[in-house]
Amino acid sequence: MKPDAATRYSRYVEFMNKIADIRNAGAVLQWDQETYLPAGAAEARGRQIATLSEIAHAHFSSDELGDLLQELNGSGDLTEKEKKNISLTLDDYNKNKKYSPAFVRNMSEQITRSFHAWMEARKKNDFVVFKPELEKLLQLKKEEAHILGFKGHIYNAHLDEHDKGLTVEVTDKLFQDLKKVLKKILPDLITYDEEPAFDFSMKKDLQWKLGIEVLELMGFDFQFGRQDISEHPFTISFHPTDVRLTTRINESNFSGMLWSCIHEGGHGLYEQGLPQNESGLPLGEACSLSIHESQSRLWENCVGRSIHFCGFLLEKLRLYDPEKFGKTDLQTFYRAVNKVKPTLIRTESDEVTYHYHVLIRYEIEKELMEGALSVAEIPERWNQLYKDYLGLDVPDYKSGCLQDIHWSHGSFGYFPTYTLGSLYAVQFFDTYKSTNNNWRQEIETGQFNSIRNWLKVNVYDYGKFYNSLELCNISTLHPLELSRFSEYLDTKFKTLTASII
Amino acid sequence: MKPDAATRYSRYVEFMNKIADIRNAGAVLQWDQETYLPAGAAEARGRQIATLSEIAHAHFSSDELGDLLQELNGSGDLTEKEKKNISLTLDDYNKNKKYSPAFVRNMSEQITRSFHAWMEARKKNDFVVFKPELEKLLQLKKEEAHILGFKGHIYNAHLDEHDKGLTVEVTDKLFQDLKKVLKKILPDLITYDEEPAFDFSMKKDLQWKLGIEVLELMGFDFQFGRQDISEHPFTISFHPTDVRLTTRINESNFSGMLWSCIHEGGHGLYEQGLPQNESGLPLGEACSLSIHESQSRLWENCVGRSIHFCGFLLEKLRLYDPEKFGKTDLQTFYRAVNKVKPTLIRTESDEVTYHYHVLIRYEIEKELMEGALSVAEIPERWNQLYKDYLGLDVPDYKSGCLQDIHWSHGSFGYFPTYTLGSLYAVQFFDTYKSTNNNWRQEIETGQFNSIRNWLKVNVYDYGKFYNSLELCNISTLHPLELSRFSEYLDTKFKTLTASII
Repeated sequence: MKPDAATRYSRYVEFMNKIADIRNAGAVLQWDQETYLPAGAAEARGRQIATLSEIAHAHFSSDELGDLLQELNGSGDLTEKEKKNISLTLDDYNKNKKYSPAFVRNMSEQITRSFHAWMEARKKNDFVVFKPELEKLLQLKKEEAHILGFKGHIYNAHLDEHDKGLTVEVTDKLFQDLKKVLKKILPDLITYDEEPAFDFSMKKDLQWKLGIEVLELMGFDFQFGRQDISEHPFTISFHPTDVRLTTRINESNFSGMLWSCIHEGGHGLYEQGLPQNESGLPLGEACSLSIHESQSRLWENCVGRSIHFCGFLLEKLRLYDPEKFGKTDLQTFYRAVNKVKPTLIRTESDEVTYHYHVLIRYEIEKELMEGALSVAEIPERWNQLYKDYLGLDVPDYKSGCLQDIHWSHGSFGYFPTYTLGSLYAVQFFDTYKSTNNNWRQEIETGQFNSIRNWLKVNVYDYGKFYNSLELCNISTLHPLELSRFSEYLDTKFKTLTASII
Repeated sequence: MKPDAATRYSRYVEFMNKIADIRNAGAVLQWDQETYLPAGAAEARGRQIATLSEIAHAHFSSDELGDLLQELNGSGDLTEKEKKNISLTLDDYNKNKKYSPAFVRNMSEQITRSFHAWMEARKKNDFVVFKPELEKLLQLKKEEAHILGFKGHIYNAHLDEHDKGLTVEVTDKLFQDLKKVLKKILPDLITYDEEPAFDFSMKKDLQWKLGIEVLELMGFDFQFGRQDISEHPFTISFHPTDVRLTTRINESNFSGMLWSCIHEGGHGLYEQGLPQNESGLPLGEACSLSIHESQSRLWENCVGRSIHFCGFLLEKLRLYDPEKFGKTDLQTFYRAVNKVKPTLIRTESDEVTYHYHVLIRYEIEKELMEGALSVAEIPERWNQLYKDYLGLDVPDYKSGCLQDIHWSHGSFGYFPTYTLGSLYAVQFFDTYKSTNNNWRQEIETGQFNSIRNWLKVNVYDYGKFYNSLELCNISTLHPLELSRFSEYLDTKFKTLTASII
């Protein structure tokens, strides 16, 4: 590399790290907002976050950065990785330049207002409290789609934000096929309802301890992260050395807490495992939200809800409460963990019906974006879709359209990545299994080194070098295949159903 | 006001609010650093805080702000308050311009490194871990004194930073006089050691509950603030609607937790009570660190350690633990709370010997700044002064020169404000008492409205309009008088001693 390009690249790295610092500071303020913020501080916090967004935006659309990127783009004196960082940053730079500072500030402030309105609406179980703020936010998201530009459906602008290259056309097709798969297997599985009840109640302190212990076993490093309580579990990273998870605890059912810990732990391992020498640059970032979700789903479902992990976990539970779990047999526990039953709450649903929850949100978002549905009509549409797909009556807003945080954050286009993530997860896990004959015994004994190492090499280390589909091809040697997922469901749940009858 | 000055003033307010947002964001990162930060995240956090400092500095030394201030300074079209904001901001602006961006970043990063070294040194009880980082920080603080400029003693630059106009000359004289007062009364009080022991042990959860309850009674509004646990108790504000207190709990002695809550609560009430319509401007800020400390001391000592409050508190304790506190009489409790005995730890010391702790730190800081003492010599000097003034042998670093956080933050010149604050506190409280004949009965029944209202009108509402001495003159109609403080000690502790014999 000629000194000139090297010097420029160093300046680029320094500049990007400063932007990362500002964004990460904003993330700290957001984390605090969702864990510890006093109720009366919402307005001031909103302004602080908006100011940081504005400053990050100003830096990221500065001429200084633009000139550096232009000079470095296409330079033959860079390594492949450096070239990739430059081209990905340039894409983002050009996109960022499309936003006016005023729009960035408006959006940030509106998100804060919407978030607090959602919190209050949930508490009051009243959609009307959320409605006006969501309307304003939706309006901004539509404007944003036009600012960013899109081909075909307006929703494509937002899908692309969450998973580069994703479109309504692709997603519609995939979801149609998935619907057929679900429709075919679901009726057989719901007989499942007949199983003996299993008591998932557990004291708060004990649940907290269990969650932390499982995270430690997975390899989440508490030297470089922590867990707190929030309304809605999430993972946020301020740097690979500072990754924060949150969970929530319901004393009558520890499964919500535990598999949410495993889920967020999967996200957290990805963030802690990203290449630190690329920190602040695209290659130090996660590939996409779909791939991020594949990491949480892989741990939550492929590992965490497997018979092998259930066996390991049951041994642990027996140490926590010998009287309660001493006589539970593994099959009963495994079936309880994998019970398939249509429910109202997405985050508490099983691996099969889960995707109906995503489908419903996807359809509503698409209709909202294209203007076929108004915000006021959301509750009715929501309830109708829950009736149609899952045969359920939604009794109130809290267990209906107010259950998720996403819309309050303006995260339209996020939900589909949950289903895509599940598909990627199965495909990654299949590939991993083919490399390690001992995978069953290892999970049964709580050893997760080999799976973590596989993920480190085949997913984490790439950062954003590839997009989702490319990464899938590189790491599994196949394109994304729905058949893998349907086979996985088929095998797992047929065995389960068989063992009941 | 002519439209022109009005428009400019609005732009000034907007600009200042943006700077406040950045500084407050930095404060959130600092709060998190001292409460929840994972151990391995220190380096990344240090860089994030430094970046925010740098950005705040860049904004605060920008030509845009400078031009606005020049245009507005001396304008006849502003109100008195507006003029004061402009002149105070201009002073700060001119001071800020003296710092180079590189110096600001260095200082910020060095503070973070020193803080973490101090944390580790404390844990390992080893001064050597802290020494190299403190040396670098001291060097920067000396450079800073020269950057800022000073008349007379180099330490004056830092004293002025904490209490505008304060000098070594003034402080030396005051501390000499105070030493005479202490020397005269202390020997009589230490007979006190003979009192019957009082058991201050209390379970963690119960202590936490007690602290929160007392803060609520004082009027600290948890809608606009919260309390957490940290290594060293402190108060930090991100806005009058978001004021954070911290405390620490030792199960063998709840008095440390409780009077630290009352102390920090006094700071917190000041921050919550500052004029919100001046938020982000000098008139929305506390007068000085000495006056800030007067607020914590007034609540902690004048109110919290009075016989009246002790009576109220004892009733409360009897509800918490009837068996333990049911038979304790008020005199025994009051004497235990006000026990005078030389101790090693400043934050656990009594109202009388406390000032020796301050004196020792003041003398060491002065010697460090003028170069008469090296960082390596601190432990020896510290131990010698504790022997000379308090007759104590310091057994280790943790209960010696590593006990306070201040030097790790580069806060040289801070300690003297603790003693000044105690003096102001007594004078404010004396003046308040003269306005309310019922003050005793109110405290005895846990009613703090009248004292809070007096402080609101006579201290909080002024913001930075006056400096410490001016405020004292305005609110108490007298200059600061050491005699008030010595009379207060004399009356309080003579009565106490008398009641023993």
